[in-house]
Amino acid sequence: MPREIHTHFLPSLFEPADLDGGTAVVIDVLRASTTICHALAAGAKAVIPCAEIEEARQLAANLAGENVVLGGERQGKRIDGFDLGNSPSAYTPETVGGKTVVFTTTNGTRALFRCAEAERILIGSFNNLSAVVNQLLKLRQPIHLVCAGTNGNISQDDVLLAGALFSDCAEGNDDIPQIDDETSIAADFYQLNLGEMTLEALKESRGGRNLLNLGLDADIERAAEIDRFDFVPVFSPQSGRVTK
Amino acid sequence: MPREIHTHFLPSLFEPADLDGGTAVVIDVLRASTTICHALAAGAKAVIPCAEIEEARQLAANLAGENVVLGGERQGKRIDGFDLGNSPSAYTPETVGGKTVVFTTTNGTRALFRCAEAERILIGSFNNLSAVVNQLLKLRQPIHLVCAGTNGNISQDDVLLAGALFSDCAEGNDDIPQIDDETSIAADFYQLNLGEMTLEALKESRGGRNLLNLGLDADIERAAEIDRFDFVPVFSPQSGRVTK
Repeated sequence: MPREIHTHFLPSLFEPADLDGGTAVVIDVLRASTTICHALAAGAKAVIPCAEIEEARQLAANLAGENVVLGGERQGKRIDGFDLGNSPSAYTPETVGGKTVVFTTTNGTRALFRCAEAERILIGSFNNLSAVVNQLLKLRQPIHLVCAGTNGNISQDDVLLAGALFSDCAEGNDDIPQIDDETSIAADFYQLNLGEMTLEALKESRGGRNLLNLGLDADIERAAEIDRFDFVPVFSPQSGRVTK
Repeated sequence: MPREIHTHFLPSLFEPADLDGGTAVVIDVLRASTTICHALAAGAKAVIPCAEIEEARQLAANLAGENVVLGGERQGKRIDGFDLGNSPSAYTPETVGGKTVVFTTTNGTRALFRCAEAERILIGSFNNLSAVVNQLLKLRQPIHLVCAGTNGNISQDDVLLAGALFSDCAEGNDDIPQIDDETSIAADFYQLNLGEMTLEALKESRGGRNLLNLGLDADIERAAEIDRFDFVPVFSPQSGRVTK
């Protein structure tokens, strides 16, 4: 059980060095975290996050020896010339099995890079909630739950998952970790949005409203599925890759 | 009833121009908002917020024609040479009645200046909760609930009052205003920390823990008193003064 759990409602609300020696869980429920889980579950060898579109194109060209798929979004939509957008259900064994996904999104990839100084960087979604909790319970070092947000604003879908991660870590444990105000706020928000309310809270979030406007309701439903997967993607800043 | 209510968990999370045409409620429960209410209730003619200590000293010297009291804190403690610290109960008819309070604090005064572009700037505390709600209910323009935070971090005492302000505005009204994710999170946090829980949530906040360390428990109890006063302090950036 970790001794400390910190929650950051946005990547801009911590300094990269604050994560030194800790474990970061990067949370972008709608949709980067969810889509990365789907890609790896579908048999992708790795997901390589890129901050910029041109960087992603260049990298894909340089990885000629690998079987590469370009995926990602801007303003929620598939990028011109990319194979896939950011809908989790589009990442299937047919589209990404055995391939390397070069991936760029508006909020999630930036949040990942902001965590580069953490000792360990995990990807969290409702799809792999229990798997992440089980890993966190084995750790003693400080945990940082890092919400990606939506275009620089706090988004309640991410806060909700942060609350779920803490609440599930604390449940049934006498030895409650030390938490900050954000973790306490997130835990209460989760407590009032359990079960069927989770999907509603995702739809009402900043990220969710954008997806509903684009007709991507199915992506929200997919993101709300709890424990669809039982693994935790790990990002290595050294290799630049997210793998199982 | 306002059509929109926005909550900002920190002053850094909005741009000053975002408040143009709106009403801002500046929230620093522990303790600037609470102390300003106490000073005006005790008969102070005005409170003049200053960002810096030297600026406050200079201004006090320049206001030789007025009966001036210097008040404020750094790291929670009274500033050397100042008449009063930031404990609300120290602002009494004896200490500030009929006088002008030149006031500088770490978080609250900065939050006030950040709101200068709003059309109207109100000061909110639990001490004047219903009075603020009654004013907000008369408005149609967007409302911005601005949490001061503690040393650049989100503090749950301020988030709690933001949740209380929205919840009390919405209660019994069919015509619920449009709200953002932060307002929704704050409202849920308040719902789980009503009544006796409010004082506990204040004590557990970043600001509260600092005050407990300084032995200032009584200030937290004072800040948790709901509707001790029935007026709303208003800040005018033109005059630089907060008055009833």
